Amino acid sequence: MSRFDTIIKGGTVVTASEVIEADVGIKNGRILDLGVDLSGADRLIDAGGKFVLPGGIDSHVHIDEPPFYGVRGVDDFLSGTVSAACGGNTTMISFAEQVRGRSLQSVFEEYSAKARDKAVIDYAFHMILCDTSDEMLSTEFPAIVDQGVTSFKLYMRYEGLALDDSQVLAAMDKARECGAMILVHAENDHCIHFIQNRLEREGKTALRHFSESAPQPVEREATHRTIALAEIADTPVLLVHVSAQQAMEQIKWAQDRAMPVFGETCPQYLFIAAEDFDKPGWEPAKFLCTPPPRAGSNQAHIWRGIQTGVFQVLSSDHCAFRFESSEGKKVADEPHISKVPPGVPGIELRLPLVFSEGVNKGRIDLNRFVQIASTNAAKIYGLYPKKGSITPGADADIAIWDPELTRTVTLDMLHDNMDFSPYEGMTLTGWPIRTISRGETIWCDGKVTAEPGRGRYLRRQPGGNRLGPPQAGGERDLNSAA
Amino acid sequence: MSRFDTIIKGGTVVTASEVIEADVGIKNGRILDLGVDLSGADRLIDAGGKFVLPGGIDSHVHIDEPPFYGVRGVDDFLSGTVSAACGGNTTMISFAEQVRGRSLQSVFEEYSAKARDKAVIDYAFHMILCDTSDEMLSTEFPAIVDQGVTSFKLYMRYEGLALDDSQVLAAMDKARECGAMILVHAENDHCIHFIQNRLEREGKTALRHFSESAPQPVEREATHRTIALAEIADTPVLLVHVSAQQAMEQIKWAQDRAMPVFGETCPQYLFIAAEDFDKPGWEPAKFLCTPPPRAGSNQAHIWRGIQTGVFQVLSSDHCAFRFESSEGKKVADEPHISKVPPGVPGIELRLPLVFSEGVNKGRIDLNRFVQIASTNAAKIYGLYPKKGSITPGADADIAIWDPELTRTVTLDMLHDNMDFSPYEGMTLTGWPIRTISRGETIWCDGKVTAEPGRGRYLRRQPGGNRLGPPQAGGERDLNSAA
Amino acid sequence: MSRFDTIIKGGTVVTASEVIEADVGIKNGRILDLGVDLSGADRLIDAGGKFVLPGGIDSHVHIDEPPFYGVRGVDDFLSGTVSAACGGNTTMISFAEQVRGRSLQSVFEEYSAKARDKAVIDYAFHMILCDTSDEMLSTEFPAIVDQGVTSFKLYMRYEGLALDDSQVLAAMDKARECGAMILVHAENDHCIHFIQNRLEREGKTALRHFSESAPQPVEREATHRTIALAEIADTPVLLVHVSAQQAMEQIKWAQDRAMPVFGETCPQYLFIAAEDFDKPGWEPAKFLCTPPPRAGSNQAHIWRGIQTGVFQVLSSDHCAFRFESSEGKKVADEPHISKVPPGVPGIELRLPLVFSEGVNKGRIDLNRFVQIASTNAAKIYGLYPKKGSITPGADADIAIWDPELTRTVTLDMLHDNMDFSPYEGMTLTGWPIRTISRGETIWCDGKVTAEPGRGRYLRRQPGGNRLGPPQAGGERDLNSAA
Amino acid sequence: MSRFDTIIKGGTVVTASEVIEADVGIKNGRILDLGVDLSGADRLIDAGGKFVLPGGIDSHVHIDEPPFYGVRGVDDFLSGTVSAACGGNTTMISFAEQVRGRSLQSVFEEYSAKARDKAVIDYAFHMILCDTSDEMLSTEFPAIVDQGVTSFKLYMRYEGLALDDSQVLAAMDKARECGAMILVHAENDHCIHFIQNRLEREGKTALRHFSESAPQPVEREATHRTIALAEIADTPVLLVHVSAQQAMEQIKWAQDRAMPVFGETCPQYLFIAAEDFDKPGWEPAKFLCTPPPRAGSNQAHIWRGIQTGVFQVLSSDHCAFRFESSEGKKVADEPHISKVPPGVPGIELRLPLVFSEGVNKGRIDLNRFVQIASTNAAKIYGLYPKKGSITPGADADIAIWDPELTRTVTLDMLHDNMDFSPYEGMTLTGWPIRTISRGETIWCDGKVTAEPGRGRYLRRQPGGNRLGPPQAGGERDLNSAA
Repeated sequence: MSRFDTIIKGGTVVTASEVIEADVGIKNGRILDLGVDLSGADRLIDAGGKFVLPGGIDSHVHIDEPPFYGVRGVDDFLSGTVSAACGGNTTMISFAEQVRGRSLQSVFEEYSAKARDKAVIDYAFHMILCDTSDEMLSTEFPAIVDQGVTSFKLYMRYEGLALDDSQVLAAMDKARECGAMILVHAENDHCIHFIQNRLEREGKTALRHFSESAPQPVEREATHRTIALAEIADTPVLLVHVSAQQAMEQIKWAQDRAMPVFGETCPQYLFIAAEDFDKPGWEPAKFLCTPPPRAGSNQAHIWRGIQTGVFQVLSSDHCAFRFESSEGKKVADEPHISKVPPGVPGIELRLPLVFSEGVNKGRIDLNRFVQIASTNAAKIYGLYPKKGSITPGADADIAIWDPELTRTVTLDMLHDNMDFSPYEGMTLTGWPIRTISRGETIWCDGKVTAEPGRGRYLRRQPGGNRLGPPQAGGERDLNSAA
Repeated sequence: MSRFDTIIKGGTVVTASEVIEADVGIKNGRILDLGVDLSGADRLIDAGGKFVLPGGIDSHVHIDEPPFYGVRGVDDFLSGTVSAACGGNTTMISFAEQVRGRSLQSVFEEYSAKARDKAVIDYAFHMILCDTSDEMLSTEFPAIVDQGVTSFKLYMRYEGLALDDSQVLAAMDKARECGAMILVHAENDHCIHFIQNRLEREGKTALRHFSESAPQPVEREATHRTIALAEIADTPVLLVHVSAQQAMEQIKWAQDRAMPVFGETCPQYLFIAAEDFDKPGWEPAKFLCTPPPRAGSNQAHIWRGIQTGVFQVLSSDHCAFRFESSEGKKVADEPHISKVPPGVPGIELRLPLVFSEGVNKGRIDLNRFVQIASTNAAKIYGLYPKKGSITPGADADIAIWDPELTRTVTLDMLHDNMDFSPYEGMTLTGWPIRTISRGETIWCDGKVTAEPGRGRYLRRQPGGNRLGPPQAGGERDLNSAA
Repeated sequence: MSRFDTIIKGGTVVTASEVIEADVGIKNGRILDLGVDLSGADRLIDAGGKFVLPGGIDSHVHIDEPPFYGVRGVDDFLSGTVSAACGGNTTMISFAEQVRGRSLQSVFEEYSAKARDKAVIDYAFHMILCDTSDEMLSTEFPAIVDQGVTSFKLYMRYEGLALDDSQVLAAMDKARECGAMILVHAENDHCIHFIQNRLEREGKTALRHFSESAPQPVEREATHRTIALAEIADTPVLLVHVSAQQAMEQIKWAQDRAMPVFGETCPQYLFIAAEDFDKPGWEPAKFLCTPPPRAGSNQAHIWRGIQTGVFQVLSSDHCAFRFESSEGKKVADEPHISKVPPGVPGIELRLPLVFSEGVNKGRIDLNRFVQIASTNAAKIYGLYPKKGSITPGADADIAIWDPELTRTVTLDMLHDNMDFSPYEGMTLTGWPIRTISRGETIWCDGKVTAEPGRGRYLRRQPGGNRLGPPQAGGERDLNSAA
Repeated sequence: MSRFDTIIKGGTVVTASEVIEADVGIKNGRILDLGVDLSGADRLIDAGGKFVLPGGIDSHVHIDEPPFYGVRGVDDFLSGTVSAACGGNTTMISFAEQVRGRSLQSVFEEYSAKARDKAVIDYAFHMILCDTSDEMLSTEFPAIVDQGVTSFKLYMRYEGLALDDSQVLAAMDKARECGAMILVHAENDHCIHFIQNRLEREGKTALRHFSESAPQPVEREATHRTIALAEIADTPVLLVHVSAQQAMEQIKWAQDRAMPVFGETCPQYLFIAAEDFDKPGWEPAKFLCTPPPRAGSNQAHIWRGIQTGVFQVLSSDHCAFRFESSEGKKVADEPHISKVPPGVPGIELRLPLVFSEGVNKGRIDLNRFVQIASTNAAKIYGLYPKKGSITPGADADIAIWDPELTRTVTLDMLHDNMDFSPYEGMTLTGWPIRTISRGETIWCDGKVTAEPGRGRYLRRQPGGNRLGPPQAGGERDLNSAA
């Protein structure tokens, strides 16, 4: 019997810290060897002149969730994971959204059922927590961690979702106890209401005012607060979809003190700008998401944050609200800052965008790309070393990239169910050309070859965070500002 | 008729920016001239070898308020203002505390009545606002501003007092509209509850744990949030009784961006330390106040904040909870971090403490002393130029200081109604020796000569803030971090 | 006999900290009283509706110095001081430039002679020190301090002037010993040579490259170094003509630590920008000075530095190199970045520029204007309280300003000997209308009434610095970064 | 024929980003495969329960250099490399020190000869450059880069070595052109002379004053200057042996702006403190090195710098000055701050110290340990991927560590030629137990099995730096402070 069933030959293998010429030997879906001139496989995949990267992990996507602003996203676990796969991803962490009154277990089961027969890549869930009652935290929370859901997202914004500080602290405290990770959407809901009321009074409700409706201090404040609450609860925390310099500086402040505070940003904050809201008609709706994209000059700061390591994770925050749809239309109502459901699609273009404008334009190197595309998410969310790396024993989740392939983004090249992309017309260089999940090529030569439902649920262990400053027990002094 | 009724001769007159050898000519309670070798008065006050300073303004004192933790303060407007006068003060701004359900007008009248026949120095009120209902803000707020109450204190801590962010924003918005100043007690109540519950579970409720019960991040977070809310509401704000480096750095961040954010600190953060809570028995209760005094090493930071201008105002936050009293005892209950009413007295020693350890030890110069003792409070709170300076046309509110007089603090030298002082036993050099209010010597040679009730209510005009960066209209960009 | 010979009536008197309605009574050139409704003078000056400010102190002007780049400035102590007076100034501190091999005493005498029969306002000298030999420092330095020259300027740039770090330390050490103040022109000469050679090789020598020839790091580095040397020598220091954000941040770093580090900036960094060097022909030469004006976006930072107190002093750095002159022409040679003598005129417009764009545009208040225009220079350079304030006993050096007068700058309205002004065509609101020096009106209604030679040399006392953080002896710890 | 000659089985392989259970297959001195359950080798090395790490790279050691302060180090390339090997190192970069008047080629040949027959591990050279004449830079510099010497160390301290800024710029400029890396010893020589003269005058020359002789601003200033010079010359730079918080903050400032500025620190700044100089007699000489170790409180900052990535490299700066030696004695003269040759040994303990106190105490994780011990130096100095990693194709340079082995440091356990260690008596947990160089076990079970001279010279390619922010060409704007 051959040692391998598949060998990826002749490529340049890139991990979070290495760039090496090596072959990858795969057996039964796992990487067995990383070696020089491997042989002994039935199947050879020629990767000469190509990059062999860990499959991407998109750790922030909204799939098949309840309506938001009255509109349902149009992607389910089939279209979502296919689109992800075609963008070089092999893992997706989507949200299971608690609805008040429902048990976490039933929510988990509902989303498991949604994914089971559809997903073509492996997946896990972050649980969105909107109820932090004693009963919820004492019983259901640990039980759901036991089910492998070891990360919880908390909102500081949106009625029905937003938690107050006591609730955040309670959830963080329980997360610390259970070895779970906390993610926070940090925008101050009170401030947004105040500002939107003011804009309403001033008649500034057209979409060109969207960025004004939640200016940087709204995010900066909630970010600072999240960090303080995490300090007090003594738990790691990750700030999702950080949009702007001011919030970024808060995260950096914490990281400079070696606090376990992590930051995520998204392509929309690198490639969309407040200026896009000046476009005519409904056009701005294509770019509308929260927190709002900022002035174009802010994009350089977000790149800087990626370069210098403030952001560990780049995710898509994929939201599939179509302009036209039987599930509710993004543009159904009037073009009013408070009435268009926020959210942009991006699961398929996340990595090509950043490869082209980041790696190929010399802003970041390949290792950093792998870190933010895959490895760091795996480490933070308890998927490592099974996912996120090309190492012996890991799942053979691999994307092969052609760094010189140039394509212009069109809507019809994408595999999600959307009727627009905010990135249409951009010409990008560097694209994935083959995606391999657990040893199986699921997309290649423009053809999806994956069977729906082949994707597996990733049951995670508590205490799985492998990134960030280990801390000597009890050393931190809350009263020291050093 | 003589030009003057009184001349203060031969002293060194100090203002916020000048140190000059000059005489002060007074007529009918006002300063008429500042001059060289003035003559023509019935009365001469010899100030040779002494400093002639603007009378102190203690802009944060609690007098005759409702019980707190079940204990009433023992100072009324007589003992309070006498004690203030003996400490070189000529103006006091105390709190009128709204009680939910009561109109601001009735609260104002109640406190006016409390003060009217008792006060020996002039006084104004900050209104403590605990109800921000629409009716309150739309009608009562402007009406009380018309009564001359142009500053409002908001709490982020204490049940029944703490406002949430929407309430703070609403109050700030109205303050902006009415030209009033907002003061904020910035500690995150949610965090304190969380921590105190944790300490309770861990059995750490003895007074030596008091500083741990509200560590620096609790204050830092609320300070940052206050600044963000003020940015969004576009209103100046003053942070009261800032205790520690972390909160101070937030204020400094704002000031470096020329935002109209002001900071106040108190002697307790210069002279009391967390280490004092390690003392035996009930002794720590003498030092217990909120925010809690910090580790001794923090004191240098507070001095630095005074030196570099982060703090504009030094106040006493005088709270007169006696150990023994028919009004409720500070030490009545058990020595438990949540059961001892927080607050320390200091109205009489505020200035001598800082003169001795600040001016005489070379940490600050005389101009800075005058700024934090008097002028800045007058400018911020709309009392300038009537109060806070020695200039023609101002009220003749003057303290004469002997910079070389050395005395050791004893309880019986003080004029408040307290049965302890946290500063007993300290030997200080530099004391006021005469206090003059509107031209009248009200304390001299250890003798109080003021008639109760001679003090007048200071009705202030809206828009009275004269300190801080003037701002070109509309220039501020919330999204710029520069 | 009348108590006063002159009373300035009905104006608004502004000092570094006060804005008051008061009359100013003057006798024999000194201010006697500041008072309400003063009377008893032969002469009344009506200042109703006007501001009565301390006369400006321009503490950085080049007058009648040796040729620089082969060109002599065209202003002498007559035209220079007349121009200053017409711009609201009553004191000028110009440079006495040591020439290697000459004794400081002879240099002092030379400049004293230049000024004696010409100056119309009072003046002092900073000595430019280019020789720090042991003999110079041990004997001549203290001797010249005894002559009242208590401030010394050191260059880090320009061959023949630039000192190395050992020389700077030696001068600082002696200054500390003698109670003298050190001023530093902080640009790294090595860097400029390196960059200019590179630009030469690249053929980038046209004037549009002037700003590139000494970019911000050149100034930032020398500023940081100056601060470190002053820390080590334990002496106060003032950085002259700070042009840009990066250098400013270094000064701020030091000030935040309460180090006695002072900063000066100039109108050219508020009103001239690198973009001016893109103008055609010789036009850029009008704007050319060192350090070079920066990109227009930098100007907001310099304003911020004035607002937040990083800069204590605003001076003109007046340099009178004419386009055409028998003393050498600014534009004589080719338009090459290294061949045009750097320096712009500004002695007369310094204050109107900043009043108009600062005070009247709401960027700074009147007190800050007085601080940077006059008081702080007086305090730092040992002229206070004789100069820099309107207080009893001070010299009656006063400028009366009409805050509403609007004029457009033309060359012929100016009183220097220049044939251009970089500010021609600007329309400014707020101008001085009368200048009073020691009680004598020397300029009014567009007429200069001063006798040449009436200005007096200001012999200063050592240890005269009255600004900045007093320091407790021996408290500073060089190894602490707090 | 077997695929491997050696397999390391059952260990936990750690690289800069991975921690995996894998076997390492080696053939002819190179790593062939990293795999699961490898087989097919003649030799098996059991690493069960052990860590398999890339061999350490000590990139800052002084071996067989000319006398310094009249004393020769006692280690040659045999004792030095043996000691290194016993401390888990497989590569050493030592200095070839230019002597003025000597060609770089002859210096290179001299050091090559010194190493050739002695070294037991592979080695490279940094050239110390003390002559930057045009001829040197135009001809010799590129020639020596062609010999594989692609890194150059510049001194800002020490007579005969210290370069001025023009010289530093010239060297940096040439390094940029040739693709070489610049290392800088950043202490301001002028300042040290000034301070030492002052200490001399004050009679403070005993060793307890050693730290005062070059306080933090001396290092901070030179660090800031180095960064500015590198910005201007547009070249990466590495600051060696950074000792203290203030210098570290400068490096961090640059890194936050994504400048290619690297930092190195050493065990002496983690484990030696200024307080050690208070020891009696000659004892302080054991701890004396430059820059001087700082107050104990500074050590936490250096740890923080390692945790947060300010420091990429941890080296020993090994200097072998014996107390007693025929080559000159460290303690020969009087115990005077300027007369004891600075330098401490540490080549063998560098890694155990940091493993024990860093990894095992929870301050850093294993990946960070590998980064600072090996990978980053390989990447920065052009040795990667041949050295610094455990990847297919790399040299089989491996150290096997027992994380639980506890030993107390004694002098006789060490393999250098020293007669003291500053770390004697420390009990450390976590030691290397076997060192493998190019597949050959050279030290194991306390036995050195390496043949002298087996180590090879590592000829490096220019442009070899693989770490740090890639920069888009021409994007940097020197005038932007963002």
